Amino acid sequence: MNTLTVGIIGAGRIGKVHANTILTQLPHIKIKYIADTWAGAKKYVESLNGLHFTQNIDDIFNDKEIEAVLICSSTDTHVEYIIKAANAKKHIFCEKPVDHDLNRIILAKEAVELNGVKFQIGFNRRFDHNFLAVKKAIDTHQIGDVRFINITSRDPEAPPIEYVKVSGGMFMDMTIHDFDMARFLAGSEVKEVYAKGVVMVDKAIGDAGDIDSAAIILTFENGSIGIINNCREASYGYDQRVEVFGSKGSVEIKNDTISSAIISTKNGVVAEKPLHFFMQRYTQSYKDEMIQFIESIQNNTETKTNIIDGLKSVEIAKAAVLSYKENRVVKL
Amino acid sequence: MNTLTVGIIGAGRIGKVHANTILTQLPHIKIKYIADTWAGAKKYVESLNGLHFTQNIDDIFNDKEIEAVLICSSTDTHVEYIIKAANAKKHIFCEKPVDHDLNRIILAKEAVELNGVKFQIGFNRRFDHNFLAVKKAIDTHQIGDVRFINITSRDPEAPPIEYVKVSGGMFMDMTIHDFDMARFLAGSEVKEVYAKGVVMVDKAIGDAGDIDSAAIILTFENGSIGIINNCREASYGYDQRVEVFGSKGSVEIKNDTISSAIISTKNGVVAEKPLHFFMQRYTQSYKDEMIQFIESIQNNTETKTNIIDGLKSVEIAKAAVLSYKENRVVKL
Amino acid sequence: MNTLTVGIIGAGRIGKVHANTILTQLPHIKIKYIADTWAGAKKYVESLNGLHFTQNIDDIFNDKEIEAVLICSSTDTHVEYIIKAANAKKHIFCEKPVDHDLNRIILAKEAVELNGVKFQIGFNRRFDHNFLAVKKAIDTHQIGDVRFINITSRDPEAPPIEYVKVSGGMFMDMTIHDFDMARFLAGSEVKEVYAKGVVMVDKAIGDAGDIDSAAIILTFENGSIGIINNCREASYGYDQRVEVFGSKGSVEIKNDTISSAIISTKNGVVAEKPLHFFMQRYTQSYKDEMIQFIESIQNNTETKTNIIDGLKSVEIAKAAVLSYKENRVVKL
Amino acid sequence: MNTLTVGIIGAGRIGKVHANTILTQLPHIKIKYIADTWAGAKKYVESLNGLHFTQNIDDIFNDKEIEAVLICSSTDTHVEYIIKAANAKKHIFCEKPVDHDLNRIILAKEAVELNGVKFQIGFNRRFDHNFLAVKKAIDTHQIGDVRFINITSRDPEAPPIEYVKVSGGMFMDMTIHDFDMARFLAGSEVKEVYAKGVVMVDKAIGDAGDIDSAAIILTFENGSIGIINNCREASYGYDQRVEVFGSKGSVEIKNDTISSAIISTKNGVVAEKPLHFFMQRYTQSYKDEMIQFIESIQNNTETKTNIIDGLKSVEIAKAAVLSYKENRVVKL
Repeated sequence: MNTLTVGIIGAGRIGKVHANTILTQLPHIKIKYIADTWAGAKKYVESLNGLHFTQNIDDIFNDKEIEAVLICSSTDTHVEYIIKAANAKKHIFCEKPVDHDLNRIILAKEAVELNGVKFQIGFNRRFDHNFLAVKKAIDTHQIGDVRFINITSRDPEAPPIEYVKVSGGMFMDMTIHDFDMARFLAGSEVKEVYAKGVVMVDKAIGDAGDIDSAAIILTFENGSIGIINNCREASYGYDQRVEVFGSKGSVEIKNDTISSAIISTKNGVVAEKPLHFFMQRYTQSYKDEMIQFIESIQNNTETKTNIIDGLKSVEIAKAAVLSYKENRVVKL
Repeated sequence: MNTLTVGIIGAGRIGKVHANTILTQLPHIKIKYIADTWAGAKKYVESLNGLHFTQNIDDIFNDKEIEAVLICSSTDTHVEYIIKAANAKKHIFCEKPVDHDLNRIILAKEAVELNGVKFQIGFNRRFDHNFLAVKKAIDTHQIGDVRFINITSRDPEAPPIEYVKVSGGMFMDMTIHDFDMARFLAGSEVKEVYAKGVVMVDKAIGDAGDIDSAAIILTFENGSIGIINNCREASYGYDQRVEVFGSKGSVEIKNDTISSAIISTKNGVVAEKPLHFFMQRYTQSYKDEMIQFIESIQNNTETKTNIIDGLKSVEIAKAAVLSYKENRVVKL
Repeated sequence: MNTLTVGIIGAGRIGKVHANTILTQLPHIKIKYIADTWAGAKKYVESLNGLHFTQNIDDIFNDKEIEAVLICSSTDTHVEYIIKAANAKKHIFCEKPVDHDLNRIILAKEAVELNGVKFQIGFNRRFDHNFLAVKKAIDTHQIGDVRFINITSRDPEAPPIEYVKVSGGMFMDMTIHDFDMARFLAGSEVKEVYAKGVVMVDKAIGDAGDIDSAAIILTFENGSIGIINNCREASYGYDQRVEVFGSKGSVEIKNDTISSAIISTKNGVVAEKPLHFFMQRYTQSYKDEMIQFIESIQNNTETKTNIIDGLKSVEIAKAAVLSYKENRVVKL
Repeated sequence: MNTLTVGIIGAGRIGKVHANTILTQLPHIKIKYIADTWAGAKKYVESLNGLHFTQNIDDIFNDKEIEAVLICSSTDTHVEYIIKAANAKKHIFCEKPVDHDLNRIILAKEAVELNGVKFQIGFNRRFDHNFLAVKKAIDTHQIGDVRFINITSRDPEAPPIEYVKVSGGMFMDMTIHDFDMARFLAGSEVKEVYAKGVVMVDKAIGDAGDIDSAAIILTFENGSIGIINNCREASYGYDQRVEVFGSKGSVEIKNDTISSAIISTKNGVVAEKPLHFFMQRYTQSYKDEMIQFIESIQNNTETKTNIIDGLKSVEIAKAAVLSYKENRVVKL
């Protein structure tokens, strides 16, 4: 594999995730810059051997050596950076969601298409070993026609209330992964949503105008039905499971654990809890999505998650918000 | 335990289940009569050593020796027999549903209360070892406040279309068990239902005006939410699982199997399929509900499932039918 | 099934097990007498509705109505009662071990054969759903030629030291079930034993000249090898598992539990412990061995466990004792 | 972490494993040379960007820049290279076994001690997440005093007969990992071995004077007992499990799989097979043992597996060979 030179925009949590993955595990990707409009990020970037920091994001777009950008900044900046990167003929990896506004996403989409650059959105779960096994079982017709997709997706603990306030809401911030997964597994588009959103974990989240738990029913054009169960807090860890039930059978995946150890004592038969932190749970998928992004660029193939996936997931999230607010079914 | 003399009304499938359980495993219950308006049932009854058959149901109500009746006849006859049995001061075990009409159920309820007889409805799953373990985990506060009750309930195969036509519809016939289970586990009453009903298994079921699959969201008065996933057909067997997720943890049960054997070969690691037939899966619960019915009579204690349970489950089923027909949330 | 009239000899623990199984679950077996040389057993027997007690064991052999006897008395009396029962033309169910003396077992065997009565030894595990699933996997060639039979067999707690002293030793009392199971699964006879016996649980057991734990390697004539791991105490319950590894795969069984419930909290993911008590674990097998015993009599078919099985298991147990005492391989 | 410069001796299978791990995942280790006495290895080494090949092993010992050597050559060369490396003050990572001759291992041990270099032997399983979880359960007293250590260790398929002939025999080549693991988990030294070795997989292995399957009982000085079950072939994959049973409970680990997917159809409930290839199964442990080796050097701490571990495992293997050949218990 040839080396690919990239620039990372945004040195927040997910930017650091990608930087760390690349530096420790992907010797074939060279990070030239990490850019952040916040000057305080400089210290972090310069602690990484030989990486350049810039507060001027345009430095990345203007650098001829940079072949691809990873957009890990706040959601409201995504579309601007996508358009600039596309116009600078740089391939784009962008975190989810693309934007909260469908029209703006369409602008981004047009810039990407016009410039013929690769675009991959960070739905990392599509690259996860367990979810891929489910997809494979479906695609190899082992379970027949998909009838129900049951997704359990619960965070280990609710985010800080400050984060909640700028998150775009639970459906846009958290469930968006599940909406994408449901589409991925259904192989079809959502035509109707019913979302029951509630506050069960923390009243402060409700006071901030958001919800922290939900039960959602998605109806797909091909007739299959998605059922999503979300909660911002699960005492036992990060709960990420799916069962897909089809005409010929079902496939289900369980949570990953640090080991397969089972300890039996007079107090019970105790297995490991699910991996607690999303980073730990999805470490490999963050690496694999990056590897596939490079391969798409170097082999000139389609990315596994594209801007349509970014668009559709936001569309569903918005319908879900409307559904829960008005407590009614919403057609797309 | 003293002997209890009973009469069974109805020699169809479920009547035979109870007769068989009693004859082979409950020596302390004496079946005096099995009554059925269909003369053809005589042959079956007389094949059972020493049991009397009658086509005249009133023979049972008029027999002074009979202390309790098991009503296993078609749903439309339940209320009439309940009232007659109650007036004859006989304790009553009645199969689900009590009736499809809420007003008629109230009449039955009044007769039961007026005559002070015991009434138990055949929600046998409440007596099942797995569901009881879930209930116990909740009641002992192991999982904290209940947030979501996720019920997976799938039959191994769709019933004959003739049965579908007289079944009262999937929600009244099959899901009614799940509605009762959700109430039992929530410890609260349903205040709102959204039911997405679809035909996925057999077009003929749709032609008969029924559905064969559903995703249902129940909202309880105490704030917990039930999610039910039904299908009339599961290729791998009878799929009866539940997960209850609470503020302090979750409890889940898996399907029972004939053995715990796991066979590993080059073709995979293969475990036993779920028990296929409801009779096999719930054998012990049919026995245990009968034992508890006798105990309620002999110790003069409350039955574990009463006529309110019969009433409420029908109320939810009717709301679910309306919800799926109009594709909207229905308040109770 | 026609009724079979039996007499039970011995009202100790296992005699009560069989009596209880028959009275509550096998209406087709009529117990006429329970005999015990200890007068104190009278009270127990007469508490059972309508059963006769006798202190004179011969009353059973002399009663023309009795078709079969269940010998549940102490081991040293087995051979005497087998011979008397056989001569009285009564079919025989005898608890394990037949005797500790091989020559005496041969005498019993001759009496059984001479009188043409059925003989079944109480190796109840052969009738257990899990062990039968293992046997079936082998017999249907799913795992190919058997290479290793790994048996884990641990009691929940050590028996009282008084019991240990009269038990005949752990190999004869406890491991004998595993020796029989190994033979059953290997489909071959043991030709060589190495037994490492140790005292790990209770020094008093060692002081009484016995051991409480062991690792045993059995070599079968057909080349397969059995590995048995025993302990008189397992903090988490009755541990009864087996894995059979063959040329085409393996089959393994796990412990049975009261339910399939799994509770996940911040403290871990906790499943039910194995059923603690042998009676609870093997309830169904005690019933099934009795049903098959009756069927053998009524259909005049071979019993599933015969006196050869009784003889061979004792032979292996004696070789194991010698092996552990001399810490060397013993040929049979 | 500072960069460490190493030389690898031996470009065979395991040498390639380490080279690949370092090149793709351990940017902080710089491989300067890969040496092999076989000229044919040159092509492989030069395909790796910027690595030097040499056929003269002494080039590595003479290179001042090289701080540590990884000895991955054939077993008969280990002691010579250990002594040379130690004398050249280079830290040593050596594959198992150190040698087949105990006296020669002692020479190596003396050279290591005299020169004060770090020595780590490649018992990679000690670094595996599952085995570490078992060790932790023991060390944190969760299962009380260790009574039995049951190791199942089966290869997916027998090695080529040419390999068998030079392997030193199954006990020295394959079981040596299990001997080390048993010692590691017992926290004690073996005092007695009984090994039953047989040919079950391939007659040609027997003809070559080796065995392909075994059941082994180890008695430890602290009274605990190890039971090892080996086979050179398991149709379903690489089978690496352990159960440790103690006075307060047990801990067991299962095989790792590519995903947690379970597919249920009318044909059964099918889980993933164990990872097939040792490289895939133990990838992370090969990385982790290397990381810990570096840390031992850079922090001047003890290595996790030292030359005593190398010595003891060979001592047990030799006793096992004697035991199986003479079919008797062998004291150490």
